[in-house]
Amino acid sequence: MKLEDFHSIKDLKGLKSSDLKLLAADIRKFLIHSISDTGGHLASNLGVVELTLALHTIFNTPHDKIVWDVGHQSYVHKILTGRKDCFDSLRQMDGLSGFPKINESPHDAFGTGHSSTAISAALGLAVARDLKKKPTNAHVIAVVGDGSMTGGLSFEGLNNAGRSNTNVLVILNDNQMSISKNVGALSRHLNEIRTASEYLGAKEGVHQVLDNLPILGSPISKGIKAAKGMIKHMVLPGVLFEEMGFKYIGPVNGHDIPALLHVLRGVRNIKGPVLLHVHTKKGKGYNIAERSPKSFHGVSTFCVHTGKPMASASKPSYTDVFSKYICRRAAADPRIVAVSAAMADGTGLAKFKERFSQRFFDVGIAESHAVLFAAGLAQGGMRPIVGVYSSFLQRAYDQIMHDVALQNLPVIFAIDHGGAVAGDGETHQGIYDLSFLSHIPNMTILAPSSGAELEAMFDFALKHDGPVAIRYPKDTAPEKMASPIVYGRSEIIIPSDDKKLAIVNIGAMMDTAAAVVDKLKENGHAPSLVNARFVKPLDMDLSAKLAEYAYVFTIEDGVRLGGYGTRLQDAIIAASRGKPPRFYPFAFPDAYLESGTRAQLFAKYKLDTDSIATKIDNIMKENNHGKSK
Amino acid sequence: MKLEDFHSIKDLKGLKSSDLKLLAADIRKFLIHSISDTGGHLASNLGVVELTLALHTIFNTPHDKIVWDVGHQSYVHKILTGRKDCFDSLRQMDGLSGFPKINESPHDAFGTGHSSTAISAALGLAVARDLKKKPTNAHVIAVVGDGSMTGGLSFEGLNNAGRSNTNVLVILNDNQMSISKNVGALSRHLNEIRTASEYLGAKEGVHQVLDNLPILGSPISKGIKAAKGMIKHMVLPGVLFEEMGFKYIGPVNGHDIPALLHVLRGVRNIKGPVLLHVHTKKGKGYNIAERSPKSFHGVSTFCVHTGKPMASASKPSYTDVFSKYICRRAAADPRIVAVSAAMADGTGLAKFKERFSQRFFDVGIAESHAVLFAAGLAQGGMRPIVGVYSSFLQRAYDQIMHDVALQNLPVIFAIDHGGAVAGDGETHQGIYDLSFLSHIPNMTILAPSSGAELEAMFDFALKHDGPVAIRYPKDTAPEKMASPIVYGRSEIIIPSDDKKLAIVNIGAMMDTAAAVVDKLKENGHAPSLVNARFVKPLDMDLSAKLAEYAYVFTIEDGVRLGGYGTRLQDAIIAASRGKPPRFYPFAFPDAYLESGTRAQLFAKYKLDTDSIATKIDNIMKENNHGKSK
Repeated sequence: MKLEDFHSIKDLKGLKSSDLKLLAADIRKFLIHSISDTGGHLASNLGVVELTLALHTIFNTPHDKIVWDVGHQSYVHKILTGRKDCFDSLRQMDGLSGFPKINESPHDAFGTGHSSTAISAALGLAVARDLKKKPTNAHVIAVVGDGSMTGGLSFEGLNNAGRSNTNVLVILNDNQMSISKNVGALSRHLNEIRTASEYLGAKEGVHQVLDNLPILGSPISKGIKAAKGMIKHMVLPGVLFEEMGFKYIGPVNGHDIPALLHVLRGVRNIKGPVLLHVHTKKGKGYNIAERSPKSFHGVSTFCVHTGKPMASASKPSYTDVFSKYICRRAAADPRIVAVSAAMADGTGLAKFKERFSQRFFDVGIAESHAVLFAAGLAQGGMRPIVGVYSSFLQRAYDQIMHDVALQNLPVIFAIDHGGAVAGDGETHQGIYDLSFLSHIPNMTILAPSSGAELEAMFDFALKHDGPVAIRYPKDTAPEKMASPIVYGRSEIIIPSDDKKLAIVNIGAMMDTAAAVVDKLKENGHAPSLVNARFVKPLDMDLSAKLAEYAYVFTIEDGVRLGGYGTRLQDAIIAASRGKPPRFYPFAFPDAYLESGTRAQLFAKYKLDTDSIATKIDNIMKENNHGKSK
Repeated sequence: MKLEDFHSIKDLKGLKSSDLKLLAADIRKFLIHSISDTGGHLASNLGVVELTLALHTIFNTPHDKIVWDVGHQSYVHKILTGRKDCFDSLRQMDGLSGFPKINESPHDAFGTGHSSTAISAALGLAVARDLKKKPTNAHVIAVVGDGSMTGGLSFEGLNNAGRSNTNVLVILNDNQMSISKNVGALSRHLNEIRTASEYLGAKEGVHQVLDNLPILGSPISKGIKAAKGMIKHMVLPGVLFEEMGFKYIGPVNGHDIPALLHVLRGVRNIKGPVLLHVHTKKGKGYNIAERSPKSFHGVSTFCVHTGKPMASASKPSYTDVFSKYICRRAAADPRIVAVSAAMADGTGLAKFKERFSQRFFDVGIAESHAVLFAAGLAQGGMRPIVGVYSSFLQRAYDQIMHDVALQNLPVIFAIDHGGAVAGDGETHQGIYDLSFLSHIPNMTILAPSSGAELEAMFDFALKHDGPVAIRYPKDTAPEKMASPIVYGRSEIIIPSDDKKLAIVNIGAMMDTAAAVVDKLKENGHAPSLVNARFVKPLDMDLSAKLAEYAYVFTIEDGVRLGGYGTRLQDAIIAASRGKPPRFYPFAFPDAYLESGTRAQLFAKYKLDTDSIATKIDNIMKENNHGKSK
């Protein structure tokens, strides 16, 4: 079957494997061309074409439920469930999401975005199914990459699903990022034995017999010891999961459609929790991506023939500046170590990893461990830097609170993707970090407004005796000079004599703030401009000064609730003894931000230069009965 | 040796096992009598007397590092490291902490309190040791209960420690809360074989030989299959950990001092990550506690002879009211299910568990999974209630943000131990929850001021189409009537005509707020009193009304940063158009709260009736140049 002849997942039922193969080839072509135009996650989707086709052939969504862990590998699923024609809007504002979303389609059983959530969510769906007055026979399936298995949440899910006797199928999509050197040691032959239901029956019997064997308590002969080692290796890939209560099936070749159909038909009838181990290849079918799957994980628009990105090299980003800085400093300071939760590339730590391999630690997709391990390193005398995206740091909130900050340990958080994040949508926005970090005692939080300031802030952090978070967006870093950082001190960019109007910038909003100042000047105002530098602690001298102003406005790339603006407002009110300035914090509202470019999101939420300048003008007009100085 | 003759851990070196046994008996007596006077964690400490003695005999703290997971089992360690005479102040303000604290003693290598952190922290300490210019031979040991092993963070720690080749010893303190039905199936004999270094040497050889055997790829005979099942069971307790890269030793009887000394001497010399499996009995040596270890987990003062608590039955707590309510409602509503992370007793869900065992899910110490599993249940049509302590909910922050609230799923959080918590100190305070929940979109947050209001709030939550958090302290619940809850509406308790002074109570601070009103009345004021009910969303009608007041004060049992008070202030300012009332939010400062009773903590942080009333009086005096109405 050709993709153009495919209209609905019903078309898949009864198709021959050869037809599915043709369809797979067409879907690959579609993916490569479509993503080369829009950008998106390519390699992971090319890896699951056959698996997704097989799943939709054997199972019936939305009656059956498929939960895609992380979810960036759900494109094929979206193509098959009526969303092919939306792919030109992928990851764009008001377009097709790059992740499953329950509001986008009934075929998306559970929304994902962050790693390691699928097993727990699937178990919830399965248990809910069984508790209904009229339980259905709906299948619930979690598709989980081997990388996601390194997250503790997956373990918690397995641990609970495994003892539950609930019918739930976990598909381990093992794309050569092996979770263990032993996984993959078993042959296809063993897989076929294991899928055969007579084997499953026999095994139960064998266990019962063996449990009662007297040999268990008696001395072990050399021969048994030898057999033990041998057998252990033979059952290893499965034993980890079987120990946790799963029936283990696999591994099966995830690009072999007949094998997949065969094994999925088989596991459909197995009761209780089942783990099906599937081997796939990231980037499968697109040579350039197969050779370099990491480069084709998340991509911008690219040329299909060369694989090269279409966009020309842009100005250095905050990430680039951090990347160079940290290598330079680490060369001189052996206390510096770096920790990443499977994000060495995204956080700019890849160079550090190369140059200082002994001092670099990729802990897998395990943010809680990353932060806690860093706390241990700090308590042991090191100066750990945790490179992490803002939205993933959410996963280590308790470790920041309970382990790092409580013990005032000098862990440095290099928080990338802070503020609005382009493309990924709701699950990846970095607009909550200032709010969830600010109420943690002992935390120092900084936000740079340029590359040089980022460096100055890390200089400060490496000398500071306590935890420091430095937060910056996925964006270009303006080039300008920066003075050294002094604890708790903001920087006055434009002073003012009349104390009427002050604009306070937080971090990377400086270009906007400066443009707002220019606009206001055109309208006859003479605003002063402050660069906050410290989100926490607040600059109390600044608060006292601002308390004497008539109007104060803050501009931040984060949510208003619990953010810098409302905290500064509180401090100014305390300092003003009953006659505070009129204050307005420009920030994101209480909402999840959808997909879009940063510029689009700023415009939509009225955090662009024009919207801010107009709002300030209006407030000053409406408020001319306010106090004047 | 008698405890009275013991002065320092140096005294342990070279002691005979018989002397250590005498000391163990004395320590038990001391623990039972001391904790019967002060309250505290008894059963877990009675379980580790011999293990702790053996550890301090073989290892040398503070040079060697011991990290106690959770840490409530560290009393014996504290007795042995110079803190015996402080036990009369245990868990009291300015007294001995019930948990390890790096500031309390150099022998406390890393502070703990929450579960499952020890392995990651120990790995950090071990890696820091090895990265030093002059690496020492210091041993790093994590002592982890089997319950803590159910937390994903432990798995993340094991997964990283196991592949690290770092010398780190994890002691699995298995106190009969087996993590697997198979753990414990191996004999002491196997343990002795495994500890012998010649076995470890031999094993490497065996593996190498077996890896090359042609049988691995060939058909498996019936005999091999049978042997496989048998052998799998024999190696099961270890294979899980060996698969993760650990050398597994055990199990050893944790009350057999000679065996412990022997095995600890042995593991000292094994390179790389080692897991030592120790069997202990909670409550060991105190018959009443052995029979009912759960009742002697955390205790108040009790009679040593009967084991009965000294305190008489007090008035019903919020927990008690919730406990009864939820059973009553669940009887009528089959959609109601309850999820707990190993805290059925503490959260009042034990009765529910008994009556509705099919609808109750104890997921182990796995808060992230608990919340995510509940999200799955909700998406599947159930009405899940997650019963959880405030400080443990921190561990599921990302799941609340990313899974529950983003999808607007009707999960109800029954947050116990909200606000100041007595006894446990810094790690268990529930004063941050309003701050970390308030900036999460779609969240509805309520705080009851009485038992009846708690019930009304759950009535509301069960009808509400979205996530709801209901937050209350570990405290008695005032008995009074409560009107039904209307979405986003506060309750005016005392109206006012002059619009001069308003007090807004949040949740369980109502008694204080009412007493403050009485005091202020004595001083000639006529305050109005509002019961906020909703922490989120704010009551915008209320904000508009309060904007017309001269003075507004809020009283909350949480931190000021990101809390209700500053958010209400922000809303009032927005509503007041430049002439806001003088506002002051009474709340906890930006700090970790130490141990103490709730009353002591309120007094220390000036949240008691007198302090609040006085402060209000002063503000009104100093501010008489403010606007008047």
